[in-house]
Amino acid sequence: MANQAPIQSARRPLLSSGYNDPNRYPHGVAYVDEQYVPMADAKVSVLDWGFLHSDATYDTVHVWNGRFFRLDLHLDRFFSGMQALRMDIGLSRDHVASILDNCVALSGHRSAYVEMICTRGMSPVFDRDPRRAVNRFMAFAVPYGSVANDEQMERGLHLAISDTVRIPPQSVDPAIKNYHWLDLVQGLYDAYDRGAETALVLDLDGNVAEGPGFNVFAINNGSLLTPDRGILPGITRKTVFELCSELHIRAAAGPLSVAALRDADEVLITSTAGGIMPVTRLDDRPIADGRVGPITRRLIDAYWQKHDDPAWTTPVNYDKA
Amino acid sequence: MANQAPIQSARRPLLSSGYNDPNRYPHGVAYVDEQYVPMADAKVSVLDWGFLHSDATYDTVHVWNGRFFRLDLHLDRFFSGMQALRMDIGLSRDHVASILDNCVALSGHRSAYVEMICTRGMSPVFDRDPRRAVNRFMAFAVPYGSVANDEQMERGLHLAISDTVRIPPQSVDPAIKNYHWLDLVQGLYDAYDRGAETALVLDLDGNVAEGPGFNVFAINNGSLLTPDRGILPGITRKTVFELCSELHIRAAAGPLSVAALRDADEVLITSTAGGIMPVTRLDDRPIADGRVGPITRRLIDAYWQKHDDPAWTTPVNYDKA
Repeated sequence: MANQAPIQSARRPLLSSGYNDPNRYPHGVAYVDEQYVPMADAKVSVLDWGFLHSDATYDTVHVWNGRFFRLDLHLDRFFSGMQALRMDIGLSRDHVASILDNCVALSGHRSAYVEMICTRGMSPVFDRDPRRAVNRFMAFAVPYGSVANDEQMERGLHLAISDTVRIPPQSVDPAIKNYHWLDLVQGLYDAYDRGAETALVLDLDGNVAEGPGFNVFAINNGSLLTPDRGILPGITRKTVFELCSELHIRAAAGPLSVAALRDADEVLITSTAGGIMPVTRLDDRPIADGRVGPITRRLIDAYWQKHDDPAWTTPVNYDKA
Repeated sequence: MANQAPIQSARRPLLSSGYNDPNRYPHGVAYVDEQYVPMADAKVSVLDWGFLHSDATYDTVHVWNGRFFRLDLHLDRFFSGMQALRMDIGLSRDHVASILDNCVALSGHRSAYVEMICTRGMSPVFDRDPRRAVNRFMAFAVPYGSVANDEQMERGLHLAISDTVRIPPQSVDPAIKNYHWLDLVQGLYDAYDRGAETALVLDLDGNVAEGPGFNVFAINNGSLLTPDRGILPGITRKTVFELCSELHIRAAAGPLSVAALRDADEVLITSTAGGIMPVTRLDDRPIADGRVGPITRRLIDAYWQKHDDPAWTTPVNYDKA
């Protein structure tokens, strides 16, 4: 083995006295260390275990026309995720809700994508024991975004099925909303390679699991079927079940085979980022006749109508002194 | 369903004009956006996919007595991880090496833990397509840390075996060094609950996989055995194979059952953070007679002797003008 050559470089650079951030950020407001700051200041230390070990949980709720949609359910999931990860931010649900409200109101956004985050944090003495870390809460509000753009909402999305397997529940409990996405990112690249717009990944049994940030439903003979295991139990997914109940449409959760998905009459996906979205093409074949189906359209309409319903929404308090 | 009450809170807080960071950071130097900065400025935007999707790869090399240890192997793995994730930072290996050298030299640390990171970054228009993101390189040098403290190095670590399953290769390629650690964190808490100091997690077949940041070896009848699949192929693990070859000790990779580990004569773990470390207790039982064994001691000695060997080390250029 040859000796390793010393590292060559030009003169030693200087240590900067202050960091100058050259990056652009979207318009929005974040809450960090009890301060409300522009998105440019919404950062995590590279030493926070939330980054170094993706040891974090989060939730995302959206605001539409000045109202939070199903905020209670998102807060429930966020607090239950923190408990499962043995994290404690020392804030009540009401306090977290008021912070989210402040982020949206200070941003001025009438429609927003609002994220609440808890990271493991760091230990004051920088040891590796997560029990000694000070858990860290952050939140931010940025403009609303969707998995599907307007054109895709109209004609339906084109999905590809990747061979990648979603991280199984034996490894990470999917009910704890988490940032472990490298499997989904691999699925996305597989989809792009096949000319599709987004992806589905499988479970260990070879059934369909979910996609990057969304659940999937197949509709056959008027009934909806969505995977029942190894998936994030999405709040828009839950909303679909509730809408189906109101509309007297049958909906069930159970194993969804790739074949059953290919043979479906309609396919839709669900996410806080976009709501209920139509899928009209799977790999190299159209779903049925390749057009957005009638049940999908009814559910999309019902979903957006609920955004004015006081039972499912909470007004943002924009005018507080 | 009752209507949701409006969010109550005190007066609207003000948007801060600048963020005031109340947190403490260890002494060290980071490279961010072509600037060398104190660790307090080593941060990632919460909107970087490296945080929001743990869409990142990294490597960690250590400096001991002013010399990088096996820097070439760490650079190899870092560049191969970026390629597998289709990331490109536009920097050569030599350039990255010189940045790491600058971080260490500017920090003044003679022994350091040096991390190089590539995140997916953000897209300039904030869309969700990872192909449009600008990949982001960062690096930092902080004081050297070890999985085992001095007392544990002397008496051996106490491990517990968790039922948690390491994220399988069908989901995330373990050869791409990544931050998906929630399974390992769960394993750690399981270990703490059982009075142990750190953990091992299993693979899908129920064999031993690895621990939080380390590989494991069982020694039986003078031969080493370490798991061969579903694990990060660690550089200290590779170093153990090379030391065994020099010392004429047999070493192999293959399935390692929990029973075989329990019945071992000696057990050791390997990590850049601590090198080769003895294990003397597994769950509620000692390994053999509960004392650090002779092969483990020989390997630890050989490992540290290599830290002066020019074939395996690269001097930090502290004195450059």
